[in-house]
Amino acid sequence: MPHTARTAASRQNGGRYGTRPTMKDVAAQAGVGLKTVSRVVNGEAGVSSDTERRVQEAITALGFRRNDSARVLRKGSTASIGLVLEDLADPFYSPLSRAVEEIARAHGALLINGSSAEDPERERELALALCARRVDGLIIVPASDDHRYLEPEIAAGVATVFVDRPPGRIDADMVLSDSANGAREGVTHLIAHGHRRIGFIGDHPRIHTARERLRGYREAMADAGLPSPDSWMALGGTDPERVRADAARMLAGPEPVTALFAGNNRVTVTLVRVLAEIAEREHPVALVGFDDFELADLLSPPVTVVAQDPAELGRSAAELLFRRLDGADDPPRRVTRPTRLVTRGSGEVPPPA
Amino acid sequence: MPHTARTAASRQNGGRYGTRPTMKDVAAQAGVGLKTVSRVVNGEAGVSSDTERRVQEAITALGFRRNDSARVLRKGSTASIGLVLEDLADPFYSPLSRAVEEIARAHGALLINGSSAEDPERERELALALCARRVDGLIIVPASDDHRYLEPEIAAGVATVFVDRPPGRIDADMVLSDSANGAREGVTHLIAHGHRRIGFIGDHPRIHTARERLRGYREAMADAGLPSPDSWMALGGTDPERVRADAARMLAGPEPVTALFAGNNRVTVTLVRVLAEIAEREHPVALVGFDDFELADLLSPPVTVVAQDPAELGRSAAELLFRRLDGADDPPRRVTRPTRLVTRGSGEVPPPA
Repeated sequence: MPHTARTAASRQNGGRYGTRPTMKDVAAQAGVGLKTVSRVVNGEAGVSSDTERRVQEAITALGFRRNDSARVLRKGSTASIGLVLEDLADPFYSPLSRAVEEIARAHGALLINGSSAEDPERERELALALCARRVDGLIIVPASDDHRYLEPEIAAGVATVFVDRPPGRIDADMVLSDSANGAREGVTHLIAHGHRRIGFIGDHPRIHTARERLRGYREAMADAGLPSPDSWMALGGTDPERVRADAARMLAGPEPVTALFAGNNRVTVTLVRVLAEIAEREHPVALVGFDDFELADLLSPPVTVVAQDPAELGRSAAELLFRRLDGADDPPRRVTRPTRLVTRGSGEVPPPA
Repeated sequence: MPHTARTAASRQNGGRYGTRPTMKDVAAQAGVGLKTVSRVVNGEAGVSSDTERRVQEAITALGFRRNDSARVLRKGSTASIGLVLEDLADPFYSPLSRAVEEIARAHGALLINGSSAEDPERERELALALCARRVDGLIIVPASDDHRYLEPEIAAGVATVFVDRPPGRIDADMVLSDSANGAREGVTHLIAHGHRRIGFIGDHPRIHTARERLRGYREAMADAGLPSPDSWMALGGTDPERVRADAARMLAGPEPVTALFAGNNRVTVTLVRVLAEIAEREHPVALVGFDDFELADLLSPPVTVVAQDPAELGRSAAELLFRRLDGADDPPRRVTRPTRLVTRGSGEVPPPA
């Protein structure tokens, strides 16, 4: 959005955002990336003198001041946005949080996080506590399936965007990965490599993405005319003991599964361990996991995944949020991001002859 | 601390904490762990009926009410503590944050996080913003080396604990790993396996732990009577390009290093990639990394590490914080946690014959 339009929209909105030029404005004016502006502003290396001059000119033209937000802070009113995560220990959320933080920073706002630990009541408590601490907007990875508790806050002007999972019983902006299609593609890939008995181990069924990925699994099996008995589907917590027990059950008996689809990276990491132990004595079991994860490509075999782009989810959500804070009042948007099958080896293991 | 003493201390302190019984009190009274209380309170499986009865009796005896903090919240005054992290994307901080969150929860307090992204000014801005939002205490992984900006907040009663790195120019509680001794042990281990030319690649020299680990490296080399020329020591950002360039430099030339010590998990993960590429054509290079990381044991070779216990660091810091909030006013404490050498394979690779 050009700087002038943005400023006009912000004025309508009370001027909390956008009346001060931000790093993002400088980047747009100079025709460079945010990172470049940040480097110049912070005096870091890696910027050509030509580019630096362009950035400095933009800074002068816009009257950008680096310390704006720190100065506002001292008056006790720094712009801030809140991010309610589901689990601090799930690495999926690290790039998502970081991307939100980067966009917030580009808008001169602080990011404050909290974790619901997958507890709906905790999510509510945290979201309302952040509102009570006067965040200007909220990005929520919901644990709850009923967000009507936010209606008074939204009515009072707190912009709210949901990410990774949809809101419950309210209408709001949301950014989701295409879980069902991603899982379908992953399972179809296993079928294409000859598997007929494929197990699905996913997260708790109260979680939207877990249900959607299960749906993708079922559709892929049905499309191929394959059965998917209940005993091949296990949803539950991602604690290793539960995942191990379900895998052991599916891999035992006269007709064991020959491939597993893992519903998220926490499940995949446990299954990698389970299958590494089994591989020493039996025919290897194929594995495709939903979510990419660090070092997946250096394992043996390297792990085939249906990758989401968590940084892009975070970026999209933050951009939707600042769009609202800049005054946009069109109907809530639903953004769906595609997934990407990354074949590396574990998903191409054939079934026993 | 027995419940009665704790309550008395809290009363002195204004009664913000401790006048309501917490899950921690229930756990102490019932003689079980916090997790068990949480399971009973949340109606989760995995608790024997005997234990459940004991917990229920403790709940009744103490008058514990699960929804206390949610109810206080509605009056706009939930207890909360702030945690200022260094980097949202470093998995080292996940178990640390989670442990802090668990202790906070046990005390009926919310945890609010933010990340300094290793920027001293950002740290200051965030810490003060959290104070302005009336957190009762702060736990800080410092990016700054001057924390005098916190003096007015501390004087105003905000309890403050530093973790992972010490505070700068103020006296406060801190919880650190023994970085120097850990690094010395890791490097001595490489020397014991026959290495004489060992490189050290660490984080930025402005970071206390990076300097301490370098010190441990130097001491180990000196103790063994080995030289450690400047060209074998590289401190800088943890971005993969920088780490790769330094590793390539140390591994080239007529007298390349035969082993590398990585100053933290971000460096280790990049070096694992570098060494995997080299291993295809040359004698393998030994590697010991500071920090354990997920899947380290499933890599090939499995990675030998000097492990910290980030959950324990978080727990200790949070316990120090709530001790202060409960009224303790003895001089600041410095807690140092030992590290642990975990030998898995990469650190036991011998030098070329």
